[in-house]
Amino acid sequence: MRHLLSLEQLTRDEILRLLDTAQALRPQALGRSAHRPLRGLTVANLFFEPSTRTRASFQLAAERLGADVLNFEAESSSTRKGETLTDTLRNLEAMGASLFVVRHAHSSVPASLAAAALPGSSVISAGDGRHSHPTQGLLDMLTIRQRKGEDFSRLSVAIVGDIRHSRVARSDAQALRTLGVKDLRLAAPATLLPDPDEPCFAAAQVVDSLDAALQGCDVVMSLRLQRERMDEGLVASLEEYYRDWGLSPERLTLARPDAIVMHPGPMNRGVEIADAVADGPQSVILEQVSNGVAARMAVLEHLAGG
Amino acid sequence: MRHLLSLEQLTRDEILRLLDTAQALRPQALGRSAHRPLRGLTVANLFFEPSTRTRASFQLAAERLGADVLNFEAESSSTRKGETLTDTLRNLEAMGASLFVVRHAHSSVPASLAAAALPGSSVISAGDGRHSHPTQGLLDMLTIRQRKGEDFSRLSVAIVGDIRHSRVARSDAQALRTLGVKDLRLAAPATLLPDPDEPCFAAAQVVDSLDAALQGCDVVMSLRLQRERMDEGLVASLEEYYRDWGLSPERLTLARPDAIVMHPGPMNRGVEIADAVADGPQSVILEQVSNGVAARMAVLEHLAGG
Amino acid sequence: MRHLLSLEQLTRDEILRLLDTAQALRPQALGRSAHRPLRGLTVANLFFEPSTRTRASFQLAAERLGADVLNFEAESSSTRKGETLTDTLRNLEAMGASLFVVRHAHSSVPASLAAAALPGSSVISAGDGRHSHPTQGLLDMLTIRQRKGEDFSRLSVAIVGDIRHSRVARSDAQALRTLGVKDLRLAAPATLLPDPDEPCFAAAQVVDSLDAALQGCDVVMSLRLQRERMDEGLVASLEEYYRDWGLSPERLTLARPDAIVMHPGPMNRGVEIADAVADGPQSVILEQVSNGVAARMAVLEHLAGG
Repeated sequence: MRHLLSLEQLTRDEILRLLDTAQALRPQALGRSAHRPLRGLTVANLFFEPSTRTRASFQLAAERLGADVLNFEAESSSTRKGETLTDTLRNLEAMGASLFVVRHAHSSVPASLAAAALPGSSVISAGDGRHSHPTQGLLDMLTIRQRKGEDFSRLSVAIVGDIRHSRVARSDAQALRTLGVKDLRLAAPATLLPDPDEPCFAAAQVVDSLDAALQGCDVVMSLRLQRERMDEGLVASLEEYYRDWGLSPERLTLARPDAIVMHPGPMNRGVEIADAVADGPQSVILEQVSNGVAARMAVLEHLAGG
Repeated sequence: MRHLLSLEQLTRDEILRLLDTAQALRPQALGRSAHRPLRGLTVANLFFEPSTRTRASFQLAAERLGADVLNFEAESSSTRKGETLTDTLRNLEAMGASLFVVRHAHSSVPASLAAAALPGSSVISAGDGRHSHPTQGLLDMLTIRQRKGEDFSRLSVAIVGDIRHSRVARSDAQALRTLGVKDLRLAAPATLLPDPDEPCFAAAQVVDSLDAALQGCDVVMSLRLQRERMDEGLVASLEEYYRDWGLSPERLTLARPDAIVMHPGPMNRGVEIADAVADGPQSVILEQVSNGVAARMAVLEHLAGG
Repeated sequence: MRHLLSLEQLTRDEILRLLDTAQALRPQALGRSAHRPLRGLTVANLFFEPSTRTRASFQLAAERLGADVLNFEAESSSTRKGETLTDTLRNLEAMGASLFVVRHAHSSVPASLAAAALPGSSVISAGDGRHSHPTQGLLDMLTIRQRKGEDFSRLSVAIVGDIRHSRVARSDAQALRTLGVKDLRLAAPATLLPDPDEPCFAAAQVVDSLDAALQGCDVVMSLRLQRERMDEGLVASLEEYYRDWGLSPERLTLARPDAIVMHPGPMNRGVEIADAVADGPQSVILEQVSNGVAARMAVLEHLAGG
């Protein structure tokens, strides 16, 4: 493993090894420790879409492993002056950076930077278009494993909401399949369902209501509804969306009593998820965030050859 | 003391203890030292209003105590995507941050974040609306004590300028009162005076001219006039403001010869204060800035349980 | 040497001493080392023009010497609130910063900040107007010396492109002259040539075509064409510019077979330089970038008294 561009590229064993590393790093993930395997290395965060949590999570992951961190945001970067992204990458490599965390609205950007990178450099997708958000997939698997144990084959998982535009849904579906989930259900308004022939959803089953998705399931993954979807005419109104597709406490009773509720954040409370669910006893949403630092530390350490 | 939201919450002894700590930290405040009590802790700077000096001062205070620092600015944050501020706080807590420095245009924001914070977390207001700027109050008290000694009860203090809109004036008035100042004078155009019944100004006396405020005083606190005040019709012109309310060298002769001149910055030179006063021998404006780093280190160290 | 505002101020020996220091720092320039002579010092990056590479290069240079770094960008700074740049400088000094890296669209800004700085502070121009970009000049000399040896007097050097608006060209021409280059050629469309009586170009010869500039030369310095030049009517079109002034592989054959090609970045590929040249065997463009970190470390270390 030299780059991390999507979870398709990883075998079950590779995913499990990353989860084991992340689990072992949990105690060090939330504060600085003496463990500094990335000392002397420079991580460049290249964020061409706005981000709070993912950028912060990668920055903390890198610093807690001892790396130096360079943060770039689209607005003040040379790419505004007509420089190609590849030239930006090569320049940062020439300054000694070797780990590149890339978020971009276009799916192909991390892969094309990976193709251009020097042999000693690694590229990690931190979300590219609708394509992939592999570290989110890993942190979600880590969270499920902590709550539901090692055997994914017995789990029923529901992914609900704007699946069509969600890179999180794609990375989660891919990882769940690789880890052996057999009962994966997708539920969304027709305008927000993915194309039926996308490979990452090959093992999934589209159900036609939120209730059908939740029925007896172990894991509910709620997705963010971007407000742009209304402007695009894909959703009539937020009120209607909540009525039909919002995860309310009443609906959640359809799932198993010990089902966990996940959300990648940022949440639209009262749209795709009710406050009482987001903050309720079944929510593992903040555990996901904590696991995110550990999962990113694991990825950085593996890619740095640790 | 778990949060620092305003100086009302502090007793005289608590303020004096913070000033003692700040005074002791002065040698370490201007360069990195071996003293690193915040090692392993993460300070998040959440600035929803633009700031150079306060953000830099908190960043340096945190780093000089050994903390890691996350900087957020409103423009690139998830709050733009509809996330609540409370969710942003909880996410950063879940990543291991435990000290939150918050600046916001609305007065209630730091208090509502403090109410939502986990037991191990602390919130510090770095300026909220017109309400409070407690670390500015502390650094101002530290500066006065260095120059005028321990006994505040004998001091005459004048606060002059746009008091109505100033969180600095409120925190200073509160602290001066707690430390025993009996002669506190407020002077401003009628449109820029505060409501007469605000508790923090209860012990103060409104005088009707700058001259009356300066007469025989020991400490002059000049306040920034925001240019928006003209657009709002509260001030006729900058020239007229300077003529009536500007701190000129001539006017300063009304104060005691050893009076000190303070300003929280950024200054509008030639509006509320003349160059010759800002840069003159009675000015302690840059000492305030240096004391700011020490005062913030003291607050961070106390809140972190040091 | 207390400030670095332009290369005019440096003698040949001073330049050579900086190059020697930079060369010695090369192994430490691309990763963190145990060499930390700036420990406890704070470097403030004051960038009033957008920048990726130069800001990152200074940040890494400072951190790899052990300094703390404060990054400022124009948009969120107090200067927007009417504060003078001198007051911003004095405030940061009062917080303990002592090394100021300044980029500004106006030529006079670094010099006026240097005039206002405290005795213990140093100002480094990171590019000011069209005037000067001294660390770029140093890194370019370091790159030439690595490839062409110590004796600059035997070199033929061509600077080609938008010389009129280029601070890089001015710093390079100045340094080349100080180091003894006798054959310095300038080639540009008439609208992009500098005034004939600018002192930094006194020893240079204006030639009337790119071919004449390249003929038998050892070093080709290509300059970025800013797209604004078209809007200003100084250049007809990018296509025409490339046809007449673009550095193509064919044209490069006019230079000596071992000639090196330099560019300060960011490049406009297909405008001032062809891909095959930028990425070809004669290009030293990425070596320039690596040398930039080392050159800036050398400057910071010298100014800090190391």
